[in-house]
Amino acid sequence: MKQVNVYDENDFSEKAFKRLLVHDSPYFKILNFNFKAGQELPVHSHEIEGQVSLIVLEGEGEFLGKDDATLPAKTGDVLISEIAEPHGIRAKTDLRLLVTIAPPI
Amino acid sequence: MKQVNVYDENDFSEKAFKRLLVHDSPYFKILNFNFKAGQELPVHSHEIEGQVSLIVLEGEGEFLGKDDATLPAKTGDVLISEIAEPHGIRAKTDLRLLVTIAPPI
Repeated sequence: MKQVNVYDENDFSEKAFKRLLVHDSPYFKILNFNFKAGQELPVHSHEIEGQVSLIVLEGEGEFLGKDDATLPAKTGDVLISEIAEPHGIRAKTDLRLLVTIAPPI
Repeated sequence: MKQVNVYDENDFSEKAFKRLLVHDSPYFKILNFNFKAGQELPVHSHEIEGQVSLIVLEGEGEFLGKDDATLPAKTGDVLISEIAEPHGIRAKTDLRLLVTIAPPI
């Protein structure tokens, strides 16, 4: 077993979002991103098989998709996307995000 | 893309913990469990390859392991366990948990 507290281990920066690698294994990769209000993870995608989950631990913002599409994002939201499908997030308040990628890339 | 808010879609019950299937695909299975204080997901394991992540969205409690081992659990904790390794959780306060299993079982 392995335990990481992402509130304790990762913080926020006015310069850019902060990224913490929580776990990487043959089964999945888990990352925590902390965004100050206004920061974003730009829309991106990779041409590989698999899915990614974006979990909003805390905060409000918008999920970003293809062709400038947006979806409201708030605490407790789980977004599932194909890795090959464009996805991203923009923070309106300080926002903590947990991302799980399976299989890992 | 698929979006589920586990705060909106799942609630608590005094009778037993509440389970919500958030997502199931060939890549991972995602479940939300809500525990009232005192409720628990007993220690269990399955003899298959893979890993499971337990994310405490909100609340305090104890992760449960082999031979009555416990680890403090609080908001923002991510616990990684082999699926074959005994794992569980007990809530000390009302607690929201997100579980990701890869590959899905």
